[in-house]
Amino acid sequence: MNETIKNILSHRSIRRFKDEPIEQETVETLIQCAQAASTSSYQQVYSIIGIEEQSIKDKLAELAGNQTYVSQNGYFFVFCLDYHRHQLMAQIAGQNVDDTIKSKEGFMVGMIDVALAAQNVAVAAESLGLGIVYIGGIRNNLPEVSELLRCPDHVVPLFGMAVGHPDASPGLKPRLPQAAVFHKNQYVEDEKALPVLKEFELQSAEYYRERTGGARDEGWATQMARVMSQPKRTYMKEFIESKGLDKQ
Amino acid sequence: MNETIKNILSHRSIRRFKDEPIEQETVETLIQCAQAASTSSYQQVYSIIGIEEQSIKDKLAELAGNQTYVSQNGYFFVFCLDYHRHQLMAQIAGQNVDDTIKSKEGFMVGMIDVALAAQNVAVAAESLGLGIVYIGGIRNNLPEVSELLRCPDHVVPLFGMAVGHPDASPGLKPRLPQAAVFHKNQYVEDEKALPVLKEFELQSAEYYRERTGGARDEGWATQMARVMSQPKRTYMKEFIESKGLDKQ
Repeated sequence: MNETIKNILSHRSIRRFKDEPIEQETVETLIQCAQAASTSSYQQVYSIIGIEEQSIKDKLAELAGNQTYVSQNGYFFVFCLDYHRHQLMAQIAGQNVDDTIKSKEGFMVGMIDVALAAQNVAVAAESLGLGIVYIGGIRNNLPEVSELLRCPDHVVPLFGMAVGHPDASPGLKPRLPQAAVFHKNQYVEDEKALPVLKEFELQSAEYYRERTGGARDEGWATQMARVMSQPKRTYMKEFIESKGLDKQ
Repeated sequence: MNETIKNILSHRSIRRFKDEPIEQETVETLIQCAQAASTSSYQQVYSIIGIEEQSIKDKLAELAGNQTYVSQNGYFFVFCLDYHRHQLMAQIAGQNVDDTIKSKEGFMVGMIDVALAAQNVAVAAESLGLGIVYIGGIRNNLPEVSELLRCPDHVVPLFGMAVGHPDASPGLKPRLPQAAVFHKNQYVEDEKALPVLKEFELQSAEYYRERTGGARDEGWATQMARVMSQPKRTYMKEFIESKGLDKQ
């Protein structure tokens, strides 16, 4: 197993950082890594906003549900789906690309492009001994986040990422068994999938029981059912459409 | 610069592979890497289908627009957004999670989860000296792909990835200048963005002119405008909703 794979397999989210900023040179390298990721048809449908002003970090932390690690870290990135650049580009080229930008397919391309770029940043940062945590919480209040960062139409902040020197060393969180997520040739039948999930329910409950000295013993299914029984961020459809995206 | 970053920065899509399969042990390691990626609230909204039967690869190649590297490679993965597992999980836990599954936010979480997992596979494979190429082309005919792979409701194949021993050595494709995609604190104003894009239009035209001995000299904006002037895959909204996703 090489260093890269060892590094990928030892990922854990870091939620406490030393009070030590990331050097600008490192930030630039991380952005280079982001840009090196594959991008659908060369479109590069993303912008990355590096938050360096503490007051903006603090405001973001508040909007993301008072997560301290959004304001206290070595660096904070916001990854945005960005078709505004393609509007400027269309001006330069004298073309109209509106129908692509507002399509479901265009929205999907953008989501994928952003996430591929972000994961390169995560892997690269961790390879340097830094810790990272994705912040989906900025989607709690996207209209406010979007305004704070002055994102124009066709630009949607999708998630943040705090990066920094780790000041915590959490354990690895067990994932679903490989048999639950990896199928051969065709999607697995329910009769084969169910026993795997039921077994993992017992295992994951045991994992939590051991880690918490019995204080918590929710298995994965029970935990997910709790998290997912109420839909989150139900304003999202309206907001995305108000940005001129994912309309048709 | 460490090996991981060197590897990330030298990414290029490989579209021609040696006739040499990837070992099963390597495939398993790649899936482990996929699962090690961050996942929103531990939901793990993906399934990965490993296509090992040549007849299915051939059929996928046809559906993806006759790309030979979809059928001729060391291994072929299809990455799916998957909330079907959460339906089974909800049965186990005796809860109803339908409103989360059919929400826009749920769809976005799934898109991001899938892409983060996939990019770990890409980086890990490349660290082993393998080449990869993402195949968005499977979205040309998703109803057929979905049926071929027997994907139930709430499961959408998003893209494929061909992996294998490279039999080509293409050059690096230049990306947008860092100044075009990386902003500080707030989204960049148009007056600052436009000159950067215009400059890149000349540079990228020059890049193509040099590489093709003058046969092609489309800059990025011209190329994108051509690619994006007609919307693609306009059936997508209807299809995604027919899968019970992204409805509200």
